[in-house]
Amino acid sequence: MPQRPIVTVYPHSSYNEQQKDARPEKDSSVASRMARFKQQYAERGMRRSVEAVLLTYQHNHPHIYLLQMNSSLHKLPGGRLRQGEDEEEGLLRKLHDKLGPDTGMSPEWSIAGLLSTWWRPAFDTNFYPYVPPHITEPKECKKIYLVQLPERFTLHVPRNFKLIKVPLFEVFDGSSRYGSQIASIPQQLSRFRLRLAYQDDCPEDLG
Amino acid sequence: MPQRPIVTVYPHSSYNEQQKDARPEKDSSVASRMARFKQQYAERGMRRSVEAVLLTYQHNHPHIYLLQMNSSLHKLPGGRLRQGEDEEEGLLRKLHDKLGPDTGMSPEWSIAGLLSTWWRPAFDTNFYPYVPPHITEPKECKKIYLVQLPERFTLHVPRNFKLIKVPLFEVFDGSSRYGSQIASIPQQLSRFRLRLAYQDDCPEDLG
Ligand SMILES: [Zn+2]
Ligand SMILES: [Zn+2]
Ligand SMILES: [Zn+2]
Ligand SMILES: [Zn+2]
Repeated sequence: MPQRPIVTVYPHSSYNEQQKDARPEKDSSVASRMARFKQQYAERGMRRSVEAVLLTYQHNHPHIYLLQMNSSLHKLPGGRLRQGEDEEEGLLRKLHDKLGPDTGMSPEWSIAGLLSTWWRPAFDTNFYPYVPPHITEPKECKKIYLVQLPERFTLHVPRNFKLIKVPLFEVFDGSSRYGSQIASIPQQLSRFRLRLAYQDDCPEDLG
Repeated sequence: MPQRPIVTVYPHSSYNEQQKDARPEKDSSVASRMARFKQQYAERGMRRSVEAVLLTYQHNHPHIYLLQMNSSLHKLPGGRLRQGEDEEEGLLRKLHDKLGPDTGMSPEWSIAGLLSTWWRPAFDTNFYPYVPPHITEPKECKKIYLVQLPERFTLHVPRNFKLIKVPLFEVFDGSSRYGSQIASIPQQLSRFRLRLAYQDDCPEDLG
């Protein structure tokens, strides 16, 4: 049996934060967002998007980075791919835009694996991890990747977001708060071995 | 970006069912089961178990095979590994015991990948896809694998179980009915490309 792929997770103290210019939302309402998607779909076909799960740990327990817009809206860093753009390149471009420095390069972050794929069957906010029966033309396909963070990094957070670190035990089964895309990330991470750097003999290393 | 690993899924008509002798539960109650686990833990240490997700499709939509004991208890085929037993060998042994013929061999079923890992921190029914903080000695580690079924097979179902096929859209977010281990399988499957045999140009093949 092959070993679980290893991802190294660094403690909260590995990462600093600094504010940068806001990345304002393009749309003022869900309705106007869906209208814009509909227009884009007519021009370019199915929207493709990518998001990243970035991990850190505290008290020997992994935490997920989430961008918080207001008390009820949490999202993973990421966004829409350009036409014909490679997924990996697009994800790194989006991460740089969301969390990299305004001038200069982002550090090396590498993609550890695909966690899940989500389809939006209609011009509304519902996504499913499969194409529902009788849907022949999904409007969006979103892929969520696990990204290995470097050992040290200053995260540059757009002024209109708060970057929060949520422990896996809070995310798990938290679909009413975080939605089903984020709430099932702990299950998807459990096929990896999360190695907590600077720790030995942690229970997280079992198995 | 590497392609998603491909798993081929065959229609319901590929598989027959036949009854075989019952596989009675060893315990008459959760309390006696937990007492037995506690005894075993003292003798052998952490219990290791494995379970399999087997897929089939109907109306172009994947379905998961579940063993139903009564109207409220659904489980994946699998069970406990022997001391030192290899996970893959143990899973095939358990699948043969649960769904193979009483005499003769099971067909070739191959393991497509690890879906999730679950820990039982205490002698109760709670599992988590991580080791919770402050837990240093989990009592059980369970791994759930995706198994590629052969193109044709007669499933031999123990008399005390019913074998049911549940569509992904019913399993998804169905944790109140199926528990969180089963309810998050659609998300975990979405990193695979499920190729529906005998179908072309299905929406499931997108992406
Ligand atoms: Zn914390
Ligand atoms: Zn560790
Ligand atoms: Zn059906
Ligand atoms: Zn197909």
